[in-house]
Amino acid sequence: MIGYRNLKVALLGGGTVGANVASLLLAHGEEFAGRTGAGIELVGVAVRDLDAVRTPAIPRELLTTDAESLILGADIVIELIGGLEPARTLVLKALNSGADVITGNKALLATHGPELFEAAEQVGAQLYYEAAVGGAIPIIRPLRDSLAGDRVTRILGIVNGTTNYILDLMDTEAASLEDALAQATALGYAEADPTADIEAYDAAQKAAILASLAFHTTVPLESVHREGITSVTLDQVKSARAAGYVVKLLAVCERLPIGNGEFGVSTRVHPALIPLGHPLAAVHEAKNAVFVEAESAGSLMFYGAGAGGPETASAVLGDLVSAARRHVVGGPGVAESTHANLPILPISSVTTRYQITLTVADQPGVLAAIATLFAEHGVSVENVAQSVAEGIDGAAPSATLVIGTHAAAESALASTVAALEENDVVTSVESVLRVEGL
Amino acid sequence: MIGYRNLKVALLGGGTVGANVASLLLAHGEEFAGRTGAGIELVGVAVRDLDAVRTPAIPRELLTTDAESLILGADIVIELIGGLEPARTLVLKALNSGADVITGNKALLATHGPELFEAAEQVGAQLYYEAAVGGAIPIIRPLRDSLAGDRVTRILGIVNGTTNYILDLMDTEAASLEDALAQATALGYAEADPTADIEAYDAAQKAAILASLAFHTTVPLESVHREGITSVTLDQVKSARAAGYVVKLLAVCERLPIGNGEFGVSTRVHPALIPLGHPLAAVHEAKNAVFVEAESAGSLMFYGAGAGGPETASAVLGDLVSAARRHVVGGPGVAESTHANLPILPISSVTTRYQITLTVADQPGVLAAIATLFAEHGVSVENVAQSVAEGIDGAAPSATLVIGTHAAAESALASTVAALEENDVVTSVESVLRVEGL
Repeated sequence: MIGYRNLKVALLGGGTVGANVASLLLAHGEEFAGRTGAGIELVGVAVRDLDAVRTPAIPRELLTTDAESLILGADIVIELIGGLEPARTLVLKALNSGADVITGNKALLATHGPELFEAAEQVGAQLYYEAAVGGAIPIIRPLRDSLAGDRVTRILGIVNGTTNYILDLMDTEAASLEDALAQATALGYAEADPTADIEAYDAAQKAAILASLAFHTTVPLESVHREGITSVTLDQVKSARAAGYVVKLLAVCERLPIGNGEFGVSTRVHPALIPLGHPLAAVHEAKNAVFVEAESAGSLMFYGAGAGGPETASAVLGDLVSAARRHVVGGPGVAESTHANLPILPISSVTTRYQITLTVADQPGVLAAIATLFAEHGVSVENVAQSVAEGIDGAAPSATLVIGTHAAAESALASTVAALEENDVVTSVESVLRVEGL
Repeated sequence: MIGYRNLKVALLGGGTVGANVASLLLAHGEEFAGRTGAGIELVGVAVRDLDAVRTPAIPRELLTTDAESLILGADIVIELIGGLEPARTLVLKALNSGADVITGNKALLATHGPELFEAAEQVGAQLYYEAAVGGAIPIIRPLRDSLAGDRVTRILGIVNGTTNYILDLMDTEAASLEDALAQATALGYAEADPTADIEAYDAAQKAAILASLAFHTTVPLESVHREGITSVTLDQVKSARAAGYVVKLLAVCERLPIGNGEFGVSTRVHPALIPLGHPLAAVHEAKNAVFVEAESAGSLMFYGAGAGGPETASAVLGDLVSAARRHVVGGPGVAESTHANLPILPISSVTTRYQITLTVADQPGVLAAIATLFAEHGVSVENVAQSVAEGIDGAAPSATLVIGTHAAAESALASTVAALEENDVVTSVESVLRVEGL
């Protein structure tokens, strides 16, 4: 066949996703040829331990521990090692040799993305990373291509399956955070060390990638405001539901006006209250979903499995078909667009709604005092719910106030909370949660 | 700038979507240049009536009634005329001249798709059609590119906003079909002649496009089994909800085993019962959503606005950016893949679950007789709900049976229903609805 090419594919990493990629490539090679017009040959799989047990198994003769040699002569390199090194060095080496690279490495992209995209552009190679955010969910390509003629204004993403599983279990089964985490660990949704998930490091990396892409702006990982779910209590989840909300760990990427018709980018990850009628509120268990708002397209949502070996392999193989087609038709890759490079905004410049839960002394005038305090700090109260608890063992009775605010600046909210904590009638500020999706 | 190109774009059609595309192109031209590396010049808009009122307005000097001349010399032609002719002739002329074509014309694609893709492939041009299905929702590109390394097994789509609005109003407000249609017409969701929507011609076109793409197979429009919503009653919707379902007009595209490890394609559009916990059940008003099941990726859902001027324009402009990037980087287009060309299956070969509602005489032994009749025709009953109505004005009392079946072949179900209609104890077969999404 004229123009038919046999493409050499090198796979780096033989973990769960890598083993699934290898297995599918070997099983469906002819089908890929039909879809791409190119033969796709898996020339080898670089692993650390040749003898590790893999599911599905990878033929022994494909395995090597010499990743650097494997890259030489490959047309396409798939990096599924994870982490920063040696992944960064190997990806740069592959790109510099002119190979297209497919990666599912969110940490690498969020940390070294600009360097990698620059290297790719220099040699006309392409860097694909659909698997880095949302597992099987097509979100990178829709943002980069489908919405390329629109302007994204906001992204609300449930991008970490572990924390969604935990929060969903707290909501639907009234589990404590500890019990829900234990169950997530038992089912394999959470790692032995769950820090990356529950402290939202994983979600912050994905938020940086999404915001960079959506706003054509380099968003450094360290600029992403990050709060995990460790302080979320069952009481908060219950009172959220009673008020018509569900608690989700959200990645929020917003284009915000900064005056004179200019815009900046806010990227943050934190637990948030979502109204029960919002499509994101129906995302259960370990599923992921990305809700995108754009000027012309309006609201879109992309939903599916956010992790898993075969699921993530599907995204990698979709990228592989794209890369193979590009090799067949020729032409350089499309550089990552950062033409807008909007200013990065600190969390203090964000304006959103809040729900604040306070324990206060149950005495006349407290509500008026609290309301005055909010007003003095420029935060407008939308609603207040009060419940009174009898004092136990002779203690004075106390009241719980749940206060919903209108949209307020983070800075105004912060000074309000500081003032509440110093106020004599306030026993404690139990929680402060942002409300998104209204 | 080296390699910088100024691309001439011809727009055919100045209706709601066309006017929005023109307006956005004129307003954001510089931004498109930044995103594509090419200048994009709207050279003209071909319309039938130069003096028609358009919202947003199109500058008078861009308008022409001479579409054929406008195409000459255009790098990219956007066809938003709709219908079969002159759209087909103009699109073929554009493709044959080497221009890339972007269309939102589902009727044209469903009817003449193979001819158009063939013409594009002959000259190395590309045909883009993200706007043809699901309005603003990116679904064509995810199916074609993101899932290209996977195998789609099933698509369940709510792809017609008008009928979803009507069915949703029946479900949430207990409106009759007539009242809901009247409201849809009043709000502009339904045309003065709603036939294309409520008889599911529109949905059938979209189903043919989705099935062709998902299964790499030419699916002729006339092979799509089509049932509209005109026979759906409020009683059906109410009893569906009582049984834990909601009624939706679904486009169902399935890859089905036909023995010897081979597969065929079934494409059908009909009202169906969806379990309330299914993500599609939460798609309200005129929204669209496409639920995709793939071997590796598992379940995915794409949700958003299925129609509307700015929304659909967003999809057209996404395609425009893709086409412009392709012009900048060079290389021929990617041909539509029909490498699989699976056999097209008739509706009689489908296996699914059913819910059958019967009115029967309220007398001993009826249930046993009905159950025997089902068994004789090879249809296994999963559950039966019976309600008895007193006879009015001295008539004999009658009972309503709602029978849920296990998965059964359409042919077996059809012969069961025929036998029910001939049976003396059956007063009438009130409705037969397929159950999808289980």
